[in-house]
Amino acid sequence: MNYRSMAPMNKPVLMLLAGSFLFLQACSQKQPAEAASTAPAPDFMYQYSIIDALLAGVFDGNLTLGELKTKGDFGIGTFNRVDGELIVDQGKVYQISHDGSIHEMADQDSTSIAFVKFFKADTSFMVKNTELGQLEKDLMAALPANEMYAIRMKGHFSKLTSRAPGPAKKPYPTLKDHLAKAQYLFNLTNTRGVVVGFLLPGYLAKVNVPGFHFHYLADDHKSGGHIFDFTATELTVEIDKIKGYSVELNTNADFDKISLDKDRQEELKKIE
Amino acid sequence: MNYRSMAPMNKPVLMLLAGSFLFLQACSQKQPAEAASTAPAPDFMYQYSIIDALLAGVFDGNLTLGELKTKGDFGIGTFNRVDGELIVDQGKVYQISHDGSIHEMADQDSTSIAFVKFFKADTSFMVKNTELGQLEKDLMAALPANEMYAIRMKGHFSKLTSRAPGPAKKPYPTLKDHLAKAQYLFNLTNTRGVVVGFLLPGYLAKVNVPGFHFHYLADDHKSGGHIFDFTATELTVEIDKIKGYSVELNTNADFDKISLDKDRQEELKKIE
Repeated sequence: MNYRSMAPMNKPVLMLLAGSFLFLQACSQKQPAEAASTAPAPDFMYQYSIIDALLAGVFDGNLTLGELKTKGDFGIGTFNRVDGELIVDQGKVYQISHDGSIHEMADQDSTSIAFVKFFKADTSFMVKNTELGQLEKDLMAALPANEMYAIRMKGHFSKLTSRAPGPAKKPYPTLKDHLAKAQYLFNLTNTRGVVVGFLLPGYLAKVNVPGFHFHYLADDHKSGGHIFDFTATELTVEIDKIKGYSVELNTNADFDKISLDKDRQEELKKIE
Repeated sequence: MNYRSMAPMNKPVLMLLAGSFLFLQACSQKQPAEAASTAPAPDFMYQYSIIDALLAGVFDGNLTLGELKTKGDFGIGTFNRVDGELIVDQGKVYQISHDGSIHEMADQDSTSIAFVKFFKADTSFMVKNTELGQLEKDLMAALPANEMYAIRMKGHFSKLTSRAPGPAKKPYPTLKDHLAKAQYLFNLTNTRGVVVGFLLPGYLAKVNVPGFHFHYLADDHKSGGHIFDFTATELTVEIDKIKGYSVELNTNADFDKISLDKDRQEELKKIE
């Protein structure tokens, strides 16, 4: 199985299939016919890498935050080595570190996974004295289940529970194993700030997180994290319906080494 | 449950959540900050709609073939009403009708689902005397399982089995039920032509077809279809590695009416 993970494109095809193949050639330089622009289509979400790669331990990526900003001004994710939580709001990228400190990050830093969009609210409303679970149920009942939404909420929280992971060391474990050792919890009270995230349908499983997924950044930039729960005293909720999404595959070598697809692995066992 | 399928965005939020909400406003005209260009990023696959929508009976879409051509010059899909198989090769869109006839289609026609790319081979090779199943096994063994590939094959087939569906009538059934009644099989012999398709990973399930998916167009434009099997006497295989993909959600009203996500439906039952 290992040779597959290392497989450059040409040689294995040649070697494995040589019996019946007449010749093999690598084509010269690609000349893409498409526009050079890599800006996303209007109202599309862009994501770098897929959630199942992160879960399996692909903790590094090759997308700089400078490039990420050309894909959206709003979103969530993490950094290389899972070094804290990533939040993008109004075009700025912040790291919530495992010690709870917040840092605006430089364009040359990189991300292993991120989901972003140019945020434009279609709908907004205010709500008082609610909890995350209730708000999610209300939104699920109101919004068509097959569509995708970016959601931005700003307000005051009497309580908010969040987390941020510390950085992992190589060889990387699975995300679950890493979080079991390196996840730091924050129990915030009387905090004012912004919630950034998405509501995504089930057909995005394996690629992104179905359902709600929110990160938090306090207005004073002294706390934040991946949200587990909150009680809000007042909240302005902005909803931005998404027309589609683009997924850029992680080009880190680890991506080709992980087993994401058990069916495919089973099929291969029959061949080998 | 039905109200959800009809739900426009603002009113239900207002009605369902009015108890705790202070105000709701629809924002005025969206002004996307992104580039107006909708050309795909270089080496990305573009797809309109998702496979689970087609399976569930969303047989109409709002993407014209003229628009589809701006997303790729190579690919597969079907037309509105599932009226035959769609194949795009070298920038031209063809319909393989249920009677086996081939038609180049006008730009103003529409598709309910299609997967396209600007095709540029990274690798090509020739193979003699092979069968589809063997070729697929060899390619699976040679290509990293988590990556995406566009595959174009040209040559001579001693045997090729394919199908094309006739158009469905409203109210649309599921695709399975439609094909059970309206799928026409073609047993071709000594045919020369082009095979167009993709090899996609398991994490694209629900959105596209994991594994191989090929359509066929004979050089004489007298036969074609969705390929079930073939025996090739000689074949030139071109492989184009894909860097990512964009999915544009189907804007047909039927898309919001189908149940794609059983987990989400179960969750809603608890709410209602």
